[in-house]
Amino acid sequence: MEASSLVLGGTVWMYCRLYRTVDRFRKPEILEAAKAGGAFLRKFARVSCGSSGKWKCAFCLTRDGKAVKIQRTIFSECFYIMAMDELSRVIGDEDMQLEAEQMMEQLICWVRVDSSGLGRPQLPGDVPANSMAVPMMLLCLVQQLTEGRGPEVIQKYRELASWCVQKILQHIQREGTAILENVSVEGAELPGCQGRLLNPGHALEAGWFLLQFSVEQKDEELQRTAINKFMELPYQYGWDKEHGGLFYFLDVDGHCPTQLEWSMKLWWPHCEALIAFLMAYSQTKKPELLERFSKVYEYTFSHFPDVQRGEWFGYLTQGGKVALDFKGGPFKGFFHVPRCLYMCERILDDMLANKD
Amino acid sequence: MEASSLVLGGTVWMYCRLYRTVDRFRKPEILEAAKAGGAFLRKFARVSCGSSGKWKCAFCLTRDGKAVKIQRTIFSECFYIMAMDELSRVIGDEDMQLEAEQMMEQLICWVRVDSSGLGRPQLPGDVPANSMAVPMMLLCLVQQLTEGRGPEVIQKYRELASWCVQKILQHIQREGTAILENVSVEGAELPGCQGRLLNPGHALEAGWFLLQFSVEQKDEELQRTAINKFMELPYQYGWDKEHGGLFYFLDVDGHCPTQLEWSMKLWWPHCEALIAFLMAYSQTKKPELLERFSKVYEYTFSHFPDVQRGEWFGYLTQGGKVALDFKGGPFKGFFHVPRCLYMCERILDDMLANKD
Repeated sequence: MEASSLVLGGTVWMYCRLYRTVDRFRKPEILEAAKAGGAFLRKFARVSCGSSGKWKCAFCLTRDGKAVKIQRTIFSECFYIMAMDELSRVIGDEDMQLEAEQMMEQLICWVRVDSSGLGRPQLPGDVPANSMAVPMMLLCLVQQLTEGRGPEVIQKYRELASWCVQKILQHIQREGTAILENVSVEGAELPGCQGRLLNPGHALEAGWFLLQFSVEQKDEELQRTAINKFMELPYQYGWDKEHGGLFYFLDVDGHCPTQLEWSMKLWWPHCEALIAFLMAYSQTKKPELLERFSKVYEYTFSHFPDVQRGEWFGYLTQGGKVALDFKGGPFKGFFHVPRCLYMCERILDDMLANKD
Repeated sequence: MEASSLVLGGTVWMYCRLYRTVDRFRKPEILEAAKAGGAFLRKFARVSCGSSGKWKCAFCLTRDGKAVKIQRTIFSECFYIMAMDELSRVIGDEDMQLEAEQMMEQLICWVRVDSSGLGRPQLPGDVPANSMAVPMMLLCLVQQLTEGRGPEVIQKYRELASWCVQKILQHIQREGTAILENVSVEGAELPGCQGRLLNPGHALEAGWFLLQFSVEQKDEELQRTAINKFMELPYQYGWDKEHGGLFYFLDVDGHCPTQLEWSMKLWWPHCEALIAFLMAYSQTKKPELLERFSKVYEYTFSHFPDVQRGEWFGYLTQGGKVALDFKGGPFKGFFHVPRCLYMCERILDDMLANKD
């Protein structure tokens, strides 16, 4: 009865991306669905915040478009920008693209200048932290907004991209042996379980964002770091040697994480790992990276797809049994699975086209 | 490095309650620890909210007392009141008791008159709901604040207690066959997975709150409802017939809940079930209620206690294996286990003293 603007934004982005770039998905029904979703988001997701004249995006909306909840984070806005930018490319709507860029300016301001617009009270013990999700999402947005655009747009976001990369690299900790999910804004380890948290799927996703960026920038050192630190490390500590699959959360000191679901196997870290290792292999041709891909592939395709009814299950127990049997839910939409298949197909097509 | 005010408030309450009412715990070190915890809460947990002159309690504090997070709910304040009222009884501090009652007035105002002080923006799709936790906590607070006090205090909270009972009874749904965790403020079923949610442990906890209240009020109909609806029903649908133990969440239509941890076995629903069934048996002497108690007791004491190092584990897999191995965490303090043992001991002592 309620829609998540993250799930809807991700779905609209994916529909548009498939329609725009993959011939066999250039179908009117895909375009119509994407336009309908985009129109809903544009009409209802933006909510005016009091007298400031600023906007936030609702995190949750009723079926008829009423805002239910506004989160005090940036993620609803991120998926709004993704959806609007990609839809504007499909239908050639320059106003919509401008709107996406305006929302992006607001978002950059919240992250880098003044977070008070997010609505969190400023509390003395609430020391700002650098959590992986923020620079990762911003780097993803820069790549979205600049893709195929002219040099002036690329120039506009160049400094931001460097800032994102630097903020992501701050998560390499413990003398280069771990990617910690949360660090201080100065790039130091945080105390307590928050500071010790590992999120292997997130690190792997950051890894392929960095790798993609390093190729565009022809930055070989960043390419090596992306592979050796953001892919190899989370694979090493994140893979369950007993049952296979990637853990959702771990503690860098080997303690038990406080998240109840820490040992579950979720679909999306496996999607991100597949993209990461295939992209890394395609760039380096190192056989051990193809082996990683194969191992993740074997686990993923023997555990997540529902062979009887199609689509993937999202949540398995540590032992690999289906723990939640729905295909779509509050955090599982049309995003990680199709993006994984789309990216892997593109990488494989490129490899076949360029084979020597 | 951070303390939850819920966990600390619950701990202070329990220390004081044990010190005050159980001879073998009337020890100076228990009193000193309770006073130290209470002083910390009183000094640091209350945070002034902007220019309104109103207070909120911080949900999370640093070790040196700085507020980290303020939740937009009433639960930090509830545990603050519990702790302050019980501590005021132990040390005979009337100012502290007055302060607890003032915070209670604030809380009643948020729940029954104007919730804007909680800091949630009023959104058109955010229809107010009656979630079980709120009237349950308020009824628990009424029982705390009125216990052993004179008739004027009891009179002061009489109407509120009736309101709480009526709000709890609204959760009996599906023609009396289920206790739903969330209903509308009018007492109708809500649409979607939120409306279909079952939380067996919570229903059982509400059950013994109601049962205790029904005895004080000599309300036999309420006594029957507490047992037949709030204990028997959640036991019937909440007990895992395959592996034993109470599920954390279920869906009344048999769908999969959206909570990742739905099938886990948590310590606290078992604590609440033990209190509920023993209290129900002691009042009715019906053998089937003792059987329920025994069945919950067997599962609980063969699965949760750490026989090697003491204390209880908090979180098991559906199959009954320890999933998280810490004894204290963000939501597990010194509360449900000692309250369960304390209540059961009191009930058993009373039964032995009154045996006929």
